Amino acid sequence: MPHLPDHLLAGYRNFMNGRYLTESGRYRELAKEGQAPETMIVACCDSRSAPEAIFDAGPGELFVLRNVGNLVPPYEPDGEFHSTSAALEFAVQSLKVKNIVVMGHGRCGGIRAALDPNAAPLSPGDFIGKWMSLIAPAAETVSSSTFMTAVERQTALERISIRYSIANLRTFPCVSILEGKGRLSLHGAWFDISTGELWVMNKETGDFERPVLE
Amino acid sequence: MPHLPDHLLAGYRNFMNGRYLTESGRYRELAKEGQAPETMIVACCDSRSAPEAIFDAGPGELFVLRNVGNLVPPYEPDGEFHSTSAALEFAVQSLKVKNIVVMGHGRCGGIRAALDPNAAPLSPGDFIGKWMSLIAPAAETVSSSTFMTAVERQTALERISIRYSIANLRTFPCVSILEGKGRLSLHGAWFDISTGELWVMNKETGDFERPVLE
Amino acid sequence: MPHLPDHLLAGYRNFMNGRYLTESGRYRELAKEGQAPETMIVACCDSRSAPEAIFDAGPGELFVLRNVGNLVPPYEPDGEFHSTSAALEFAVQSLKVKNIVVMGHGRCGGIRAALDPNAAPLSPGDFIGKWMSLIAPAAETVSSSTFMTAVERQTALERISIRYSIANLRTFPCVSILEGKGRLSLHGAWFDISTGELWVMNKETGDFERPVLE
Amino acid sequence: MPHLPDHLLAGYRNFMNGRYLTESGRYRELAKEGQAPETMIVACCDSRSAPEAIFDAGPGELFVLRNVGNLVPPYEPDGEFHSTSAALEFAVQSLKVKNIVVMGHGRCGGIRAALDPNAAPLSPGDFIGKWMSLIAPAAETVSSSTFMTAVERQTALERISIRYSIANLRTFPCVSILEGKGRLSLHGAWFDISTGELWVMNKETGDFERPVLE
Repeated sequence: MPHLPDHLLAGYRNFMNGRYLTESGRYRELAKEGQAPETMIVACCDSRSAPEAIFDAGPGELFVLRNVGNLVPPYEPDGEFHSTSAALEFAVQSLKVKNIVVMGHGRCGGIRAALDPNAAPLSPGDFIGKWMSLIAPAAETVSSSTFMTAVERQTALERISIRYSIANLRTFPCVSILEGKGRLSLHGAWFDISTGELWVMNKETGDFERPVLE
Repeated sequence: MPHLPDHLLAGYRNFMNGRYLTESGRYRELAKEGQAPETMIVACCDSRSAPEAIFDAGPGELFVLRNVGNLVPPYEPDGEFHSTSAALEFAVQSLKVKNIVVMGHGRCGGIRAALDPNAAPLSPGDFIGKWMSLIAPAAETVSSSTFMTAVERQTALERISIRYSIANLRTFPCVSILEGKGRLSLHGAWFDISTGELWVMNKETGDFERPVLE
Repeated sequence: MPHLPDHLLAGYRNFMNGRYLTESGRYRELAKEGQAPETMIVACCDSRSAPEAIFDAGPGELFVLRNVGNLVPPYEPDGEFHSTSAALEFAVQSLKVKNIVVMGHGRCGGIRAALDPNAAPLSPGDFIGKWMSLIAPAAETVSSSTFMTAVERQTALERISIRYSIANLRTFPCVSILEGKGRLSLHGAWFDISTGELWVMNKETGDFERPVLE
Repeated sequence: MPHLPDHLLAGYRNFMNGRYLTESGRYRELAKEGQAPETMIVACCDSRSAPEAIFDAGPGELFVLRNVGNLVPPYEPDGEFHSTSAALEFAVQSLKVKNIVVMGHGRCGGIRAALDPNAAPLSPGDFIGKWMSLIAPAAETVSSSTFMTAVERQTALERISIRYSIANLRTFPCVSILEGKGRLSLHGAWFDISTGELWVMNKETGDFERPVLE
């Protein structure tokens, strides 16, 4: 017998009787024409920061990569398996998205792990430790800011890592060329799980600010 | 000035006036208590197959990894950066999820690329080509099944790749041990973008079947 | 002829025809009975963060000390002139206030000066340099957090200095004794000049959070 | 949980729904451009004499130092912490204010303490006693003016201390030089809490007189 967890089956019933019912035409059209999203989101796997919820996005609207800590590693054309680079290449070269948004969020477990120098590996492979070591230099300076509270250090690193990922996006030739031509723009955002506030990166300064919603 | 694409700002306004307004208590609680999702979903980046939409999932319900083709590479503790393995390790060892669902979907661009032996690289790094080569052996045999139509070949590979990823999940010691103890279960699902149908994998046979919805 | 700048005379006319007209009874009573404010505010001299405006306070409500950077130096009974300690002593021992609130604010010029190690003295006496050196150790660690933006470093130090002043308040025997008896409570707050947001310190963690306004 | 006294939270709500609502543009501009007040006020901490209320001043208008008795100590470049001198230096050298107003008021508790030779220290540190000793010579002669009533002695010392602080302002080289060049002017004012009357110092005679309000 095919089997799925009950909460997923119940949720799927709601989908069929709700969103799919009202948007079936859109789904059929998207199946026929193919997807053509304007925006790629690089987000965290965290269960509390789903981009489609936060941006109230319908089918076909967002091409979404999610990994722990919403990290983009630097360009490394070494013939290895790079899931993030593959998604990026597909979004930019094949789908020709116009925007890439790196979206982080508060209370991120991956960032918390990066800030704890004494964290034991979660398994012998220590995949999280290795993955989060991408931002190790920043994590070290933030960890040493002992006058800041634990939450302040974490928020600081969450925002630093967004800027870091955006800088890495620009190490991909296709990204930097298209950005230079004005055909692709890069954005940063940070979601506060508790208050629902979205903080958007100021491109000139790198600061995160609240957008004025009309 | 902070800047985001207009469609995202408009969507965020809807979120704040809609879902966040009715679920702010849940968001605040999740921020305070931390996330404790029971289920991890491995899904594709495709803009038409958002797991939270298909399973009508609320905040805190699904830990979601998304890459092109919803692939899980095999266990490789080699000290390199593995975003998928890192997310898996975090979900299983830290969040202690009870279910992992690999969800594929129809008309997947990544799978289509894997089926085209003459596809030119999208960029000099050929990240998509390398990434999809994870399922190259299966792709080759399917490509040679000349009696199947193009759509049939694609659906076949989409489902094969789900079974392949589930097999790779079991190469991770932590997954196989917990599955053996009955504390973790692995599932496969395939979403038909056009009809909205969800096909669920039968664990005994590997077949994809329509679940009976009460 | 008595002389005041025109803008002050114009403002005073508005006061007499406005607030004083409607509150003259309260002013007369306060003159007769003496002041009995429940709350002392330690705030910055900055022209954009007047406590009476931010807390919409009427006459007699707030005993307000203002210096650059809203600093409270540690207890030093050395017989020198200590304007901050004198105000604190008067508020606690004579007026018997029940609350002391240290209120900082964004874009503070004093804090900015503390973060600039190469700042030239403003005058041969270098009074600002000496005054802000009260928080020099924190300023140094924040200055070295090079992954943070200038604004992020400044906000961090603004909040650190509030916690520092609250810690110094507790070095005054009269403060710590009364706090221990539950007759005096200490609070921290940070005002965002741009958005008007008030962030309030969480006493357990030291974090600054938005209060829920009913 | 963040916590502030109830009366402050209620007042802040009024601010956000009132003054901030109508002046948010001004606040945003001040945040962006920085403050540029033309006038510094040296006032008392007393809860009944808020300069912003008495001069109906909006955000950005007044740089306000407040200590007990609105005193300015003489110039003393000795390397110690001088909060008043630091504020003065910042206002004159960095903000380049055009006016400094020393504003005293009636029924001042600090002045009353200075007039009572038998006053017991409020605490072992006797910070108020030491602080008010700045005007001890004047306080002694006034105390011995036995033909004056208690209220007359107090009003006399309140006004003497304003002239004393203005004289001390001139001991700061930056103040006297700029005053000499006509780029800075010094003023005295005295506020009658009961009647709301403002008395302004005549620069030639030192007398306090009622200004003619058009």
